[in-house]
Amino acid sequence: MENKFAFAKTIVKEAGDYILEHMKEDLHVERKSSPTDLVTKLDKDVQDLLIEKIHSRYPNDSFCAEEGCLRAAVGQGSVWVIDPIDGTNNFVAQGEDFAVMVAYFENGVGKFGIIYDVMKGDFYHGGGDFPPCCNDEPLPPFKKKPLREFLVAGNSGMLETNEWGLADLGNAALGTRVYGSASISFAKVLSGRLLTYISYLQPWDYAAASILGESLGYKVLTIAGKEVDFHTRQAVMMVPVEMQDEILSYIYERK
Amino acid sequence: MENKFAFAKTIVKEAGDYILEHMKEDLHVERKSSPTDLVTKLDKDVQDLLIEKIHSRYPNDSFCAEEGCLRAAVGQGSVWVIDPIDGTNNFVAQGEDFAVMVAYFENGVGKFGIIYDVMKGDFYHGGGDFPPCCNDEPLPPFKKKPLREFLVAGNSGMLETNEWGLADLGNAALGTRVYGSASISFAKVLSGRLLTYISYLQPWDYAAASILGESLGYKVLTIAGKEVDFHTRQAVMMVPVEMQDEILSYIYERK
Repeated sequence: MENKFAFAKTIVKEAGDYILEHMKEDLHVERKSSPTDLVTKLDKDVQDLLIEKIHSRYPNDSFCAEEGCLRAAVGQGSVWVIDPIDGTNNFVAQGEDFAVMVAYFENGVGKFGIIYDVMKGDFYHGGGDFPPCCNDEPLPPFKKKPLREFLVAGNSGMLETNEWGLADLGNAALGTRVYGSASISFAKVLSGRLLTYISYLQPWDYAAASILGESLGYKVLTIAGKEVDFHTRQAVMMVPVEMQDEILSYIYERK
Repeated sequence: MENKFAFAKTIVKEAGDYILEHMKEDLHVERKSSPTDLVTKLDKDVQDLLIEKIHSRYPNDSFCAEEGCLRAAVGQGSVWVIDPIDGTNNFVAQGEDFAVMVAYFENGVGKFGIIYDVMKGDFYHGGGDFPPCCNDEPLPPFKKKPLREFLVAGNSGMLETNEWGLADLGNAALGTRVYGSASISFAKVLSGRLLTYISYLQPWDYAAASILGESLGYKVLTIAGKEVDFHTRQAVMMVPVEMQDEILSYIYERK
């Protein structure tokens, strides 16, 4: 597994370099499901690049990835879960606050996760048998404090409608943030800067964070406190297990 | 004025160094007007440090500053407007996404502004007779695009209640972000990453940005489209003049 992990880190760094090299070119922005659901030529190119490299080294592995229709079930065999550019709207409009994410599973067991915040240069890697780190520095295990001392994050739509009580939770906490990217928000949870991140997410949005967070005391759950399915789009939250009940007391009540 | 500007840049850099040096120590967090209105020992120390340096070099200048009760009127004489740490809640909870801000006025005319995002290392400086730059690179003048291609930012409370139509504006745009800091949000407007930032703000929150943005095509206005007073807490927006009417068509209607 160490070789596979080293290989994964290398190709994600290469994907970051590829983005840096090409992000000033015409991005060929297109709309997917809605006027604000963007995809660029680079999302597709970076995904192709990652899959090509993995496939030529590990031809029997399969893929679950954001662009196109690769949807391997995470529970069976050796599966790579890939989000080539998470936070595409930030990428297009800001040129920052986006990340490359890769997660690797064997028969449903997360072996490692990688989140690469390309512009900040923060490279989160580990989980499974590997210590979760940012830029080779160990990430801090979750440390309990009063809810009032933590910031929380979610998506703006949920905040507007107080869906699942996100606004109530934020008002009981120190405040609510909206970064417009799962990877950037999860990275802030993993580094102890946010208590939780709550949003509607696909497997490639949360796979890497869920593997990275496990030994630090975090879990990615549905908003009802159940296991995520790694298959459909679900309302999802990453929470420290130690404060899960307190968080759910704001969230779950609204169901 | 060149000497004064160079002096200001030096002391703001020094303030940043002071923060970096002391931010791992006990911050002595206190609450001001509410449980989420935080102030730390460092806010006060950094303000004292800035004011001491300015006062010993320019003993006749006066001050309008966040901590304490220095409230010089910006319209009269030589006035420094100072926010020692803007985004104190981010500073305390995240150790990032905060900035030092300094603005300088002579008889109500903005001469220069400085925003220093300490952790990112981004130093915005200029305005008045000086070209607005980030890290000595000229900032881009505002470039018009369809509203749908821009992100907007505001505070979470306004988003929750759709106050002044912020949620409506965000839904007509590419999306809404909440960064929890005026300086970080204004820096993103100044670098073309956000169309507008809307929040309740004090003079020290918007003074530097308003000077920096002028020659780039931006204005800081009240939410009703009037001049800000540089005196009281007001609902404020930084907008590109070229799209002011379009933005106001979402915002002002709600009044």
